[in-house]
Amino acid sequence: MKKIGVVDTTFARVDMASYAVRALQSRGTGFKVLRATVPGIKDLPVACRRMFQDGADLCLALGMPGAAEYDKTCAHEASLGLLFASVLEAKPVVECFVFEGEASGPRELHELAQRRAEEHALNAYSLLFRPRDLARRAGEGLRQGFVDAGPVRRTR
Amino acid sequence: MKKIGVVDTTFARVDMASYAVRALQSRGTGFKVLRATVPGIKDLPVACRRMFQDGADLCLALGMPGAAEYDKTCAHEASLGLLFASVLEAKPVVECFVFEGEASGPRELHELAQRRAEEHALNAYSLLFRPRDLARRAGEGLRQGFVDAGPVRRTR
Amino acid sequence: MKKIGVVDTTFARVDMASYAVRALQSRGTGFKVLRATVPGIKDLPVACRRMFQDGADLCLALGMPGAAEYDKTCAHEASLGLLFASVLEAKPVVECFVFEGEASGPRELHELAQRRAEEHALNAYSLLFRPRDLARRAGEGLRQGFVDAGPVRRTR
Amino acid sequence: MKKIGVVDTTFARVDMASYAVRALQSRGTGFKVLRATVPGIKDLPVACRRMFQDGADLCLALGMPGAAEYDKTCAHEASLGLLFASVLEAKPVVECFVFEGEASGPRELHELAQRRAEEHALNAYSLLFRPRDLARRAGEGLRQGFVDAGPVRRTR
Amino acid sequence: MKKIGVVDTTFARVDMASYAVRALQSRGTGFKVLRATVPGIKDLPVACRRMFQDGADLCLALGMPGAAEYDKTCAHEASLGLLFASVLEAKPVVECFVFEGEASGPRELHELAQRRAEEHALNAYSLLFRPRDLARRAGEGLRQGFVDAGPVRRTR
Repeated sequence: MKKIGVVDTTFARVDMASYAVRALQSRGTGFKVLRATVPGIKDLPVACRRMFQDGADLCLALGMPGAAEYDKTCAHEASLGLLFASVLEAKPVVECFVFEGEASGPRELHELAQRRAEEHALNAYSLLFRPRDLARRAGEGLRQGFVDAGPVRRTR
Repeated sequence: MKKIGVVDTTFARVDMASYAVRALQSRGTGFKVLRATVPGIKDLPVACRRMFQDGADLCLALGMPGAAEYDKTCAHEASLGLLFASVLEAKPVVECFVFEGEASGPRELHELAQRRAEEHALNAYSLLFRPRDLARRAGEGLRQGFVDAGPVRRTR
Repeated sequence: MKKIGVVDTTFARVDMASYAVRALQSRGTGFKVLRATVPGIKDLPVACRRMFQDGADLCLALGMPGAAEYDKTCAHEASLGLLFASVLEAKPVVECFVFEGEASGPRELHELAQRRAEEHALNAYSLLFRPRDLARRAGEGLRQGFVDAGPVRRTR
Repeated sequence: MKKIGVVDTTFARVDMASYAVRALQSRGTGFKVLRATVPGIKDLPVACRRMFQDGADLCLALGMPGAAEYDKTCAHEASLGLLFASVLEAKPVVECFVFEGEASGPRELHELAQRRAEEHALNAYSLLFRPRDLARRAGEGLRQGFVDAGPVRRTR
Repeated sequence: MKKIGVVDTTFARVDMASYAVRALQSRGTGFKVLRATVPGIKDLPVACRRMFQDGADLCLALGMPGAAEYDKTCAHEASLGLLFASVLEAKPVVECFVFEGEASGPRELHELAQRRAEEHALNAYSLLFRPRDLARRAGEGLRQGFVDAGPVRRTR
């Protein structure tokens, strides 16, 4: 049975992992979820690598950087760490970050975090179990958490 | 037979992979195309590494970052990930990114994406099958998707 | 018995390691502390890697970058180095940096450094011995050294 | 016999490799030049790694980034890739980049590119065959392509 | 006997290595100095890695980036390369960079370079032979080349 690692943080202000796990389970069966929570986003890369060593086939890394400039730097560092862990292990890490500054208030932030966590979870599911679903939607301008941009149609 | 991996995203707004594959096939035979689609550009590096593990001799990584500042950061991270995967495997990854902000409208964006995908595909073909074609054009100021800058001729 | 590496610098202006070690010891027993001090934050990554080679299960890396622009660059480099060491060894490195510019004066700086060192030490303890304590607090908006941001509650 | 890899790009607007090879050959014998041309500067790192695998003892990586902001980002990424390839293989990569914006016109650009390619080639030769020539000039403020800055003499 | 690698550049405008070696020798015996000079700071990482392969226990990497914006980018890249080499080998690299812009004139630049080279050399010595000297000075706000910032004392 496939294993999906779901890692989140105590720093985040929304329990994104619950939404992600629910979305995964709504999509199908035949996989086991490994869960871990770390303090902040910079702790995610090593947590993913450790999950891969425990047999995970894919990791979903959920985080919510703050709105300050320094938080963006931390997110950048965390992203590079996730890429490093992923390429090193040759296993996908689906990064799902929501920046506090992306939403104009608490309600919008909560909804954005929920939707993005769910949509990235569905992507994770597709990567593992239905790669053709992704292939069919290549170049379709899909967005996670916001309205899809859609494809640019050729105008004549 | 050589294998060329072609990886693109559902985030992109133009189906660049189709243009790239067509350009590859118009150029010659004697290779097999491996195809995969991932959600976004940060998922490209591990997809390339996995294709190399499946026998690809070269990967073409196609992506279309958005126009916002954060999209540029993501593209930078993705590029570093692609470089890491490529150097680690000692196999070429031809990166083909089109930034939404590079074009002034949908039509121009579509045409730019098509042309750049085709021209990078031809480069990929040359890297694998005709390295001397590239050697002959060293220092010629070639550009993908735009008019070539051309060489700087010595003026006297 | 588990081993916790605690590495700090002579560059820092507060003896954060003492606070961290005290916090660790106040939390429980059953672990041994390995201590090292290096000149600056860029010396932390290799010191952590060496501690892992000496058997550490987790490292706490404490530093205090200056307030100048260049200090931020150094901190960024050090962070990437810590991520690299951590992912390479597949062992957690808990980074605890306090920037001089975060506090408005010496007293506040001292208090911030103490509190953050203590709170990161407790996180380190939880990562090693009580992962469920972290899991229970997923998405709770915890902050180290400052007041917690708290969770974003869904408003109706 | 030692092997020197010389890699350049079709993106560059001056045939820097020819100048580099001529400079190498003017300096001595006892080495073989391996040549490759890739599309752009981000393709240089893997090309160097492959040359090392083919027996190169040192690589000279020649590139000419454009004048736009994005070109600087690409050059930064390429530089990190070259450092990665070099450290990984424990073999020197001499990076020789000329930015279009460094020169005020085509003639100056051509001359700068030629001079810098030649001077980096001589450095490459020294690294391999005459390390003492470099040691003798430690701290002398040498520059490639421009007038040397010279040493800062102690003033009394 | 321990070996200390000392690597500097021909780009630097002060012969920092001589000051560093003298400072090392003034501090004690029981070690051998390995010397190398490379063209610029980006050549330092691989030179350090090669010295580690030749048996160095620690490397001192001395460089003097110019005052332009691009020089800062090069220094950043070189620093990341040094961190990579150091963590990969699990051996310390003491980076000693002096930026031309740090000093207001040639005399000050020379003095700063000398003092910083000497003080980093003493740090290198302590890392190898007297780790407790560093431990005793943890959190003391030490600076290399400038007056120490000193510790932040708790005010009541």
